[in-house]
Amino acid sequence: MQSQQKASPISNIRKNRIRATIRKIIFDADTPAGKAFDIGLFIAIVLSIVGMMLESVKEIDDAWGFQLMALDWVLTVLFTLEYGLRIWTTGKPFKYIFSFYGIVDLLAILPTYFTIFYAGANALSIIRSVRLLRVFRVLKLVQFVGEASNMAKAVKASANKIIVFIAFILIVSTIIGTMMYMIEGRGHGFTSIPRSIYWAVVTLTTVGYGDISPATEVGQFLAMCLMIMGYGVIAVPTGLVTAEMIKSSSAIGENKTAIEKEFSNITCPNCSSEGHKSNAKFCSDCGQSF
Amino acid sequence: MQSQQKASPISNIRKNRIRATIRKIIFDADTPAGKAFDIGLFIAIVLSIVGMMLESVKEIDDAWGFQLMALDWVLTVLFTLEYGLRIWTTGKPFKYIFSFYGIVDLLAILPTYFTIFYAGANALSIIRSVRLLRVFRVLKLVQFVGEASNMAKAVKASANKIIVFIAFILIVSTIIGTMMYMIEGRGHGFTSIPRSIYWAVVTLTTVGYGDISPATEVGQFLAMCLMIMGYGVIAVPTGLVTAEMIKSSSAIGENKTAIEKEFSNITCPNCSSEGHKSNAKFCSDCGQSF
Amino acid sequence: MQSQQKASPISNIRKNRIRATIRKIIFDADTPAGKAFDIGLFIAIVLSIVGMMLESVKEIDDAWGFQLMALDWVLTVLFTLEYGLRIWTTGKPFKYIFSFYGIVDLLAILPTYFTIFYAGANALSIIRSVRLLRVFRVLKLVQFVGEASNMAKAVKASANKIIVFIAFILIVSTIIGTMMYMIEGRGHGFTSIPRSIYWAVVTLTTVGYGDISPATEVGQFLAMCLMIMGYGVIAVPTGLVTAEMIKSSSAIGENKTAIEKEFSNITCPNCSSEGHKSNAKFCSDCGQSF
Amino acid sequence: MQSQQKASPISNIRKNRIRATIRKIIFDADTPAGKAFDIGLFIAIVLSIVGMMLESVKEIDDAWGFQLMALDWVLTVLFTLEYGLRIWTTGKPFKYIFSFYGIVDLLAILPTYFTIFYAGANALSIIRSVRLLRVFRVLKLVQFVGEASNMAKAVKASANKIIVFIAFILIVSTIIGTMMYMIEGRGHGFTSIPRSIYWAVVTLTTVGYGDISPATEVGQFLAMCLMIMGYGVIAVPTGLVTAEMIKSSSAIGENKTAIEKEFSNITCPNCSSEGHKSNAKFCSDCGQSF
Repeated sequence: MQSQQKASPISNIRKNRIRATIRKIIFDADTPAGKAFDIGLFIAIVLSIVGMMLESVKEIDDAWGFQLMALDWVLTVLFTLEYGLRIWTTGKPFKYIFSFYGIVDLLAILPTYFTIFYAGANALSIIRSVRLLRVFRVLKLVQFVGEASNMAKAVKASANKIIVFIAFILIVSTIIGTMMYMIEGRGHGFTSIPRSIYWAVVTLTTVGYGDISPATEVGQFLAMCLMIMGYGVIAVPTGLVTAEMIKSSSAIGENKTAIEKEFSNITCPNCSSEGHKSNAKFCSDCGQSF
Repeated sequence: MQSQQKASPISNIRKNRIRATIRKIIFDADTPAGKAFDIGLFIAIVLSIVGMMLESVKEIDDAWGFQLMALDWVLTVLFTLEYGLRIWTTGKPFKYIFSFYGIVDLLAILPTYFTIFYAGANALSIIRSVRLLRVFRVLKLVQFVGEASNMAKAVKASANKIIVFIAFILIVSTIIGTMMYMIEGRGHGFTSIPRSIYWAVVTLTTVGYGDISPATEVGQFLAMCLMIMGYGVIAVPTGLVTAEMIKSSSAIGENKTAIEKEFSNITCPNCSSEGHKSNAKFCSDCGQSF
Repeated sequence: MQSQQKASPISNIRKNRIRATIRKIIFDADTPAGKAFDIGLFIAIVLSIVGMMLESVKEIDDAWGFQLMALDWVLTVLFTLEYGLRIWTTGKPFKYIFSFYGIVDLLAILPTYFTIFYAGANALSIIRSVRLLRVFRVLKLVQFVGEASNMAKAVKASANKIIVFIAFILIVSTIIGTMMYMIEGRGHGFTSIPRSIYWAVVTLTTVGYGDISPATEVGQFLAMCLMIMGYGVIAVPTGLVTAEMIKSSSAIGENKTAIEKEFSNITCPNCSSEGHKSNAKFCSDCGQSF
Repeated sequence: MQSQQKASPISNIRKNRIRATIRKIIFDADTPAGKAFDIGLFIAIVLSIVGMMLESVKEIDDAWGFQLMALDWVLTVLFTLEYGLRIWTTGKPFKYIFSFYGIVDLLAILPTYFTIFYAGANALSIIRSVRLLRVFRVLKLVQFVGEASNMAKAVKASANKIIVFIAFILIVSTIIGTMMYMIEGRGHGFTSIPRSIYWAVVTLTTVGYGDISPATEVGQFLAMCLMIMGYGVIAVPTGLVTAEMIKSSSAIGENKTAIEKEFSNITCPNCSSEGHKSNAKFCSDCGQSF
């Protein structure tokens, strides 16, 4: 940003002014124009995802295939334009390009271009659904981000316990899966050990598809043990998360208003970082003034 | 009410007295007559719902179709009468008509009349099951209402977290559903992306019908990841609600007797509002005296 | 008891002494003989249940049917003898006959006698499995009874909330079940409203058999909503019970040793009541001395 | 150990030195060589398990059967070598042989040798997956062991309650299973009482395969009751574990650093016991100096 401001003839000043305006619209959700842009973008994202889903339904694709393809191309061109503007207006393009949102934005437009060479590539554009996370910006629901980060914290705090828990599930599933492979045999759907382990996980997590199910008495008895175990084991993650939440819930209650006050919707136009205080005058990551 | 009291010849006084008596019976659950009315109404509602259910069973409909239809018409006429009396006796008919119970009461009788023109309309009368909520009035179980409102409060307090949680489930289901659509293909039941997302929700919530289930190794592996995730994610709503309940449980304990004392079964005959204190002399919403 | 002690010639004294000895063996689990009797009784109960289960397996019944029937008759005669002795030795026979255990003991022997007239009656003897509750007496595990009663208390304390919760599940299932009946129609297994409600409960509780599952897009969407709701609603009973348990857990910790000390395995020979203090000299219910 | 040190000519001193070095590598995870050995061992264990799983997939076994068998034999010989070295270098061989890890290590190599006589024996080598528990040693994740032992403690503290809970599930399943056997009969998959009990457990734990499902109205009604019960009963283990975890969570927070400091990766070379303090100079079980 600094380097560009040094070399500034009159034509460049104008160009910079346009750039700054676009930047404000694209990156800042607090102005009316910025909010309108975010809502429009969100609608476009939802439209493109719904279009892609409908395209996968054979009957709809047969009847409306051309229109859906046209919609997809129009939206892709708009997303490409938006991506270009973001790179152009941001101060540090590389920081944006390699940021989480930068990569997602790029991955969201590439699949459509790939369909020129390979028709099936279109399905890859499901990556666009990750862009739905922008909804929280659109709705100016800072407290949602606060809730999400609180929940993420609770999960993080129990990370060690969760790893032990998943390791336990996998070892139990491996042992019981192999036992079932030996007991039931290939005739009852337990055609290999990996498939038997798949069955054990399906049972232990109480999903229970029924695509594979024990048919011998011994197998059914073992399955019963596994089910009761799974029924009890589900208490462990619940207990962990609940204990964490109770610990942090009083803290949340006290800090919520503070969090809401503190954080704004400002995205740094220079380095694309988010989560700045609403009364911030400079970017806390790169020093860019707002 | 006021306007009607102004114009009152002797015949009108009598009429008003009858109206007041009926009003007391219909709207007030504390008098013996009112209680008998509420119990009778509740039995009629249950009868009409059971009748409608039985009508949908082909064997029963073939044998008892006429009797069930007759029962439905008798009950509908009674409900219409009750609806008319409520409008006539209440002070502010429009307030009752557009209140929650007023709309439900109307919707409960309309479907039967529609069957004159279109036979299938009968099924719409399931809306009557909402009227079952009157059971709490009948049983004079004010504490149930207190419990329900406490539970609703706990849910409301976690509303933001629940929205983040549902958004998380939907985004995960969309991404994994699309991946499964690409991995498994149309041959194994994953015929479209919406259907694959349906499968992902069935799996993540540990319902697991088995109408669609992965058959390839990669698909089964991805399904296992989704199941273990779903098994752990169930901890989040549980943790939320539990934390809320523990927070409020001491408060509930202290306030329960107070709540029971405070609230009565009185419904304002003027504006149909409920939840008045048992020692209330005037409606807290419209000033009508009891 | 008193009336019998008045009329006592020498032969009667002897008879009374035998009766008192048998009474001690049958009703009291603290003496070695009483303990041996209880263990033997427990083994006999387990044997009779296992025998009945095996009889229901066609292959086993074909090969060992006669032996199993013989075993059943021998055990039934023994149980009848035990039942007779209990009536004879207890002071107040009618109190025993109409007590919980008295009724269960009678129901446990009747089905076998019924098989003389009707072969299928045998299956009714599953009521014997209720007698397995005696295991807690046998193992002298008074603390288990303490735990069970604590858990029962926690459930009782949340009884109101649980009723509201079950009412909520039933009303939601009724409404969504009827909607599915209208949407999916008879072609996809939703052949009647009761069956559709059954499907709704199967889905809401995350059991998910898959014997009935939605096949239309609208039905699958509605099912997804129901599943996510069910996934969240499971948090409610968990939250309730957890909150109760946390409240009572400190109290349990302090009182456990006290409970263990206080209660014994003594059953009053006069009135068959249980749960007397181990240092009790008289029955707290009828004043009978031990 | 003492007896061997008494009789020590010069050649024996050398032998002892080699033995001590190997012992340090095998039993101690704190030196670089020991860590490298543990990582290599862990990779070998994973390799052998993956190999065994792949062997069970028919297509892979047809194409790569020989290579997989060769890999299995190479790994088995290496494991045998390791087992021999452990016996040779440890001071008290019998203590190691009959320790938990000693038995698992032996069971892990035996199945492959059995395949010389009986081909199917190979599947028994799944016992190797128990050896995966060594992963916690490899990753030097002492805190994981701490977490696991804390969770085990929470489970142990609720042991009595869990037994009551499982007894409750089994008795309910037995009674309802038998009732369903009588209601549904052999035509609908409820071919015997044990199979009906299996169905009841599948339903109560909300697994719901759908391999057996009720088809009559009465059966479906009973199934609905069982499901709602199961949906509520799941709250009990969750409540138990959560209450325990909340009780212990503050204690965990305070003691974690202490635990990490206290325990080391040292395995006693004399008696194979683990869990010694990191500043321990002597084995706390046998007095062997480190």
